[in-house]
Amino acid sequence: MTWASMDLNADLGEGFGRWRLTDDEQLLSVVTSANVACGFHAGDAVTMRRVCALAAERGVRIGAQVSYRDLAGFGRRAMDVPPDELAAEVAYQIGALEVFARAAGAAVAYVKPHGALYNRVVRDGVQARAVVEGVLLAGGGLPLLCLPGSALHRSAGEVGLPVVAEAFADRAYTADGTLVPRTEEGAVLHDPAEVVERSVAIARSGTVTSHGGRPVPVRARSLCVHGDTPGAVELARRVRAALEDAGVRVEAFA
Amino acid sequence: MTWASMDLNADLGEGFGRWRLTDDEQLLSVVTSANVACGFHAGDAVTMRRVCALAAERGVRIGAQVSYRDLAGFGRRAMDVPPDELAAEVAYQIGALEVFARAAGAAVAYVKPHGALYNRVVRDGVQARAVVEGVLLAGGGLPLLCLPGSALHRSAGEVGLPVVAEAFADRAYTADGTLVPRTEEGAVLHDPAEVVERSVAIARSGTVTSHGGRPVPVRARSLCVHGDTPGAVELARRVRAALEDAGVRVEAFA
Amino acid sequence: MTWASMDLNADLGEGFGRWRLTDDEQLLSVVTSANVACGFHAGDAVTMRRVCALAAERGVRIGAQVSYRDLAGFGRRAMDVPPDELAAEVAYQIGALEVFARAAGAAVAYVKPHGALYNRVVRDGVQARAVVEGVLLAGGGLPLLCLPGSALHRSAGEVGLPVVAEAFADRAYTADGTLVPRTEEGAVLHDPAEVVERSVAIARSGTVTSHGGRPVPVRARSLCVHGDTPGAVELARRVRAALEDAGVRVEAFA
Amino acid sequence: MTWASMDLNADLGEGFGRWRLTDDEQLLSVVTSANVACGFHAGDAVTMRRVCALAAERGVRIGAQVSYRDLAGFGRRAMDVPPDELAAEVAYQIGALEVFARAAGAAVAYVKPHGALYNRVVRDGVQARAVVEGVLLAGGGLPLLCLPGSALHRSAGEVGLPVVAEAFADRAYTADGTLVPRTEEGAVLHDPAEVVERSVAIARSGTVTSHGGRPVPVRARSLCVHGDTPGAVELARRVRAALEDAGVRVEAFA
Repeated sequence: MTWASMDLNADLGEGFGRWRLTDDEQLLSVVTSANVACGFHAGDAVTMRRVCALAAERGVRIGAQVSYRDLAGFGRRAMDVPPDELAAEVAYQIGALEVFARAAGAAVAYVKPHGALYNRVVRDGVQARAVVEGVLLAGGGLPLLCLPGSALHRSAGEVGLPVVAEAFADRAYTADGTLVPRTEEGAVLHDPAEVVERSVAIARSGTVTSHGGRPVPVRARSLCVHGDTPGAVELARRVRAALEDAGVRVEAFA
Repeated sequence: MTWASMDLNADLGEGFGRWRLTDDEQLLSVVTSANVACGFHAGDAVTMRRVCALAAERGVRIGAQVSYRDLAGFGRRAMDVPPDELAAEVAYQIGALEVFARAAGAAVAYVKPHGALYNRVVRDGVQARAVVEGVLLAGGGLPLLCLPGSALHRSAGEVGLPVVAEAFADRAYTADGTLVPRTEEGAVLHDPAEVVERSVAIARSGTVTSHGGRPVPVRARSLCVHGDTPGAVELARRVRAALEDAGVRVEAFA
Repeated sequence: MTWASMDLNADLGEGFGRWRLTDDEQLLSVVTSANVACGFHAGDAVTMRRVCALAAERGVRIGAQVSYRDLAGFGRRAMDVPPDELAAEVAYQIGALEVFARAAGAAVAYVKPHGALYNRVVRDGVQARAVVEGVLLAGGGLPLLCLPGSALHRSAGEVGLPVVAEAFADRAYTADGTLVPRTEEGAVLHDPAEVVERSVAIARSGTVTSHGGRPVPVRARSLCVHGDTPGAVELARRVRAALEDAGVRVEAFA
Repeated sequence: MTWASMDLNADLGEGFGRWRLTDDEQLLSVVTSANVACGFHAGDAVTMRRVCALAAERGVRIGAQVSYRDLAGFGRRAMDVPPDELAAEVAYQIGALEVFARAAGAAVAYVKPHGALYNRVVRDGVQARAVVEGVLLAGGGLPLLCLPGSALHRSAGEVGLPVVAEAFADRAYTADGTLVPRTEEGAVLHDPAEVVERSVAIARSGTVTSHGGRPVPVRARSLCVHGDTPGAVELARRVRAALEDAGVRVEAFA
């Protein structure tokens, strides 16, 4: 299945106080959707305000990147948060971001879990339902940007929340279309040319070459590009250019 | 100047995680306005959700009690927060609470600074303007509950934000109508009967007996009752009953 | 196997800033070992100093109650903390407490994991080894207070760290001597008389009646009494009195 | 007054979790004293362990850089922390660092306040005495690295704690030998050649050219070089080389 258009999303605003991580200014000239950190794994209020203002100015869609409450671990450590706490914390983060999106003349347009929470809700139905409950609490029926086939995907579907399927051009896929765990060798692709090529393949033909060398179908309306590594901005630019050269319209999902 | 009606406000939801401080359930049956902690000096997301639900159910008005970011100090330590940070942090807290108020079918109806921030913006024009900017950022033109004559009062006036004057029946006033600093002896009144009597005097005649024994005018549309001390609920009940006996309508400000 | 003497340990200093939880003053007149919170799940520096001073004054042994970094969850949420982080964080907490123990003329005499970390290292060998590494890092070869047969127990043994076995008089045991999970009905005993009786049985005969009604051997040099529930102090006093009446010397482990 | 030798100190380990700020590896090949962040304004346990190990390996002296508890503000916002809290927090930080220094075969050799606390104790006698009390609490009579003539300098002297005077080659001095406040124009010098020249002047002749152009005496046993700006490492290297070329022994204070 191919798409006439593809969204590019990246994690932004992932500094905290004195610390910076992502080159927000540059990335906002490349991506069409900004996953903005909301203060639980990164993202202070000043940064949130600045990123929202810049995103709105450039017509980049604003999403709430919700996380476990874990600044020390950057939200990368799975936590057994009880579902009522997780739901309330997801809503809290969305509400905090909403203020800055609104002040910039925009709105929070979607929700994407971050780091360990993203990985957990691929399989953990309880936490997946808690994330969905948090999105419902926040109101507005915001779409969830998530892995197709994940528990989060299913949970959102059960209550009628829209989902947007995303793919990772720099991650290896198994033959059945799931991500190769980061703990396995070759899970992350480092060759820029290969990442660019896979981006185009996902957008044009809806397939990606699996770890074993076979084409597997990968359904995606959005491609995630990473913003916190050296060369990230340059790679994102190449991905975008290659997509456009291949006739793919790079634009935010509807 | 007297009022046909008086609002009673109290700080609520001042626990955090495992810790509780205020008897929210009981206080919400007495007061007409709830200053809900928003996570910076106290108040986790589960507590915020619970308190908003209960307040909405009982028709108690919900206000955002915004604070310096200082869980360890309960927001009671003055901090030299730069104005852009303070403004953004105030907006962040309002937005986070708004989610839970809205989910309960209500809305955040006002803003009140907490602890050291409350005291600071009595005189500090820079931080006062930052608080006002934060309220404006959050949108909706929310009224500020504050001390009449304070820098915050003036700053709100300058941009047309409504203010609600409040008084403290358990605090000594100087002859010129300001609060006796807590560091001075006799600054806080501990005799319940006296607190009740002063509450009625403020509501009925708009005056309170100063530290020096003279009547001083105290303009107030809301009385603050404290919720974090033993006997707090009982005292709040007595204040409310005495006001009603004296013909004062106890109700939230318009 | 019986013991001529029994240690009584309790979690202390579990407040944070404005919040209090444990009645430290009272509990320190009952227990012989104080598991002092070190700032990661609870315990600010002022409280740590105060509890250490009081414990030293009363001859109560001071232990470091180390936890995941999780104030919002009171250390009760399991976290996938990488072992190098966990080891360093355990050492950090021990070092911080050591200052206050030393200033009181005492020393940190043992280490006990708290909450979710305590439960995790019953089975998780990786985190258990990380806790042991943290204790080694801190120096002094401090004994670990832990569940006999746990992964932590084994890990400590592998590197020659001493362990002190502890038992819970208010928890149900399975027929093979492990704790009934809290998620199962009847896991926690609420009848004070029963708790007192089991305390004496553990100390005198080294057995406890299992969930199924059979006597199971429970090896313990220390009994854990809980300090954060209503009636906790009174129950601890009854346990201590009953042990003494039964001829058990209530004293800290050597 | 000239010195046969000069210490070079820099702030190190100022990352937190995912975030990095200082190039610890490079700076530790230049400076003779490392002011290690202890977790309150920056510095997680893993970083503290790593920096201590590297410093010990290279013979760089380890100091505790103590701060207000303010990760969000990087310790740069003055806070009205009550003296008993401040003293206990200073001791807590020293103790936590001590563990990692000891594990590396070294010891915490001095204490230096960070950021807003450093500036505050130049004039605030109450907080200065609290810092001194915290150092005493931690034991060992550690020297304080501080501005000569500051309140902290005097407070340390009153209880017999040693002090080490430091100077800043990249800060403008007034005619009476104090620092020009950062809020004034020209307070910070940005020309590397000038910074290098002033470093040598301070070390060789104990004078520096004031803002007004006159030589003022600047007594210093240690020079602070900054590590968190682009070019910081290169500048520190030039300062060290110039000192050595001028016949100054670059070595830690005794």
